[in-house]
Amino acid sequence: MLVIKIGGGAAISEGGYTNFAEDLATIAEPVVVVHGGNAEFSALSGQLGMPPRMVTSSSGRVTRYTDAATMDVMLMTYCGKVNKRLVATLRAAGLNAVGLSAIDGGIATGRRKPVLRGIEDGKSKVLRDDHAGTLETVDPSLVRLLLQNGYTPVLTPPALGEAGVPINVDGDKLALELATALQAEGLLFFSDTPGLLRDRHDETSLIAEIDASSPESALAAAAGRMVVKVEAALGAVERGVGRVVFADGRIAKPIRAALNGKGTTVRHAMPAASQTGDR
Amino acid sequence: MLVIKIGGGAAISEGGYTNFAEDLATIAEPVVVVHGGNAEFSALSGQLGMPPRMVTSSSGRVTRYTDAATMDVMLMTYCGKVNKRLVATLRAAGLNAVGLSAIDGGIATGRRKPVLRGIEDGKSKVLRDDHAGTLETVDPSLVRLLLQNGYTPVLTPPALGEAGVPINVDGDKLALELATALQAEGLLFFSDTPGLLRDRHDETSLIAEIDASSPESALAAAAGRMVVKVEAALGAVERGVGRVVFADGRIAKPIRAALNGKGTTVRHAMPAASQTGDR
Repeated sequence: MLVIKIGGGAAISEGGYTNFAEDLATIAEPVVVVHGGNAEFSALSGQLGMPPRMVTSSSGRVTRYTDAATMDVMLMTYCGKVNKRLVATLRAAGLNAVGLSAIDGGIATGRRKPVLRGIEDGKSKVLRDDHAGTLETVDPSLVRLLLQNGYTPVLTPPALGEAGVPINVDGDKLALELATALQAEGLLFFSDTPGLLRDRHDETSLIAEIDASSPESALAAAAGRMVVKVEAALGAVERGVGRVVFADGRIAKPIRAALNGKGTTVRHAMPAASQTGDR
Repeated sequence: MLVIKIGGGAAISEGGYTNFAEDLATIAEPVVVVHGGNAEFSALSGQLGMPPRMVTSSSGRVTRYTDAATMDVMLMTYCGKVNKRLVATLRAAGLNAVGLSAIDGGIATGRRKPVLRGIEDGKSKVLRDDHAGTLETVDPSLVRLLLQNGYTPVLTPPALGEAGVPINVDGDKLALELATALQAEGLLFFSDTPGLLRDRHDETSLIAEIDASSPESALAAAAGRMVVKVEAALGAVERGVGRVVFADGRIAKPIRAALNGKGTTVRHAMPAASQTGDR
């Protein structure tokens, strides 16, 4: 079983996800799709005169402030336009796709941090009623039920917080926790880069493989947001996910390419003793 | 098993559907929820500078023209904001709600009529690339799977047309076909009126009961859109739905009230012979 996360960048959605649909239609293995929607989110926010409000915390972390109206824009783009257009495309390719948010069926809950403190446009701010938060629990029951009955679940943030309040949680983290709960053989992250790059301005600086048994050199070479991604991937492999691949979502047959070693693969280079001799 | 259709009018959604959530939480019977979203659809269309384009056919039927951009607005409001806010409210009340569009899992397909002809603003028009259509097939497999596993399905248009194109289909018709396919004991339509009215400007002119065995006098008293509703209800009762109720969705405990005879109930006044003596 595979979990694939399709990023929400503009370049990846340009072809209407037909590359993913065509590829998925030829893969016999059950697949869970998780997607983002950031480009659509930003576009609709702009059209509605609600430009993103970015706040930098004292630790340097940049967060998007999500008030109730912004959460509605998130629901509309992630759960409405992106989820249903993707499901329609997958169904047209022959997959029995079912689109859900992580709110549905209790797939994920999040904890809200209602007060956001930090710097916005150079000024110190205390913003209340924030609808962003941290993923707390993942329940794969509904996803498992759908897989067992031949459906392809297509999932998106947000998750559900207390008192019926939707919470903006990280889509990568959602995919990661689901892959771990389902003990997926592969967790593939697709974005608009060829994989993890030593130098993010140079697409030829791709790191092809990270051995989960000795990741020190890869971690030493990584910087910024990439450290978080590598650490998350290593954690998933430690918790039983077969391999994690960071791969290009803009190409034809993106899933096959990722499974065949394109992009950055994180796994134990030496198979575990119990699996030796399997093939 | 009950199928309830919650209309998409502004008055009915004002309280955030908490009246439905509180009521549903106390009902032991399995329930399928179908909802509209017209008020939100019109509001977002207006905000985006896309006012509704209404076309009147030669037979006098008024249709909303749905181009691809308008379909995106429909997906965003019906499947995004309304569906997920309603699911979040139901989950907070203790229901294991799962929100889906009729696209998901092949619940419904529609046939597109790509060319819309008629009168718009007094001028004869031929509008192409219309995404509105007629409901063609309903497959209750996914809804049944969810009910059997303790979930409360929460469904909304659109349906899926050919080649992955979402189709705007009538939500009332979707509820009706689902209730028939599931052989529901009750199909309850909630809107912002007390039920079917002899005079639509006079809320005291409510028709309390229509006997499906002799509907002639009710049909004679009905006019316009009401004839369509009564005929659809009679059809559903003939095809095995226990009763159809047109009821007020703006009040507390709307479902209990409808089941207790508030609104307009359509059913066979005399139970079928096989059921005589049951109570």
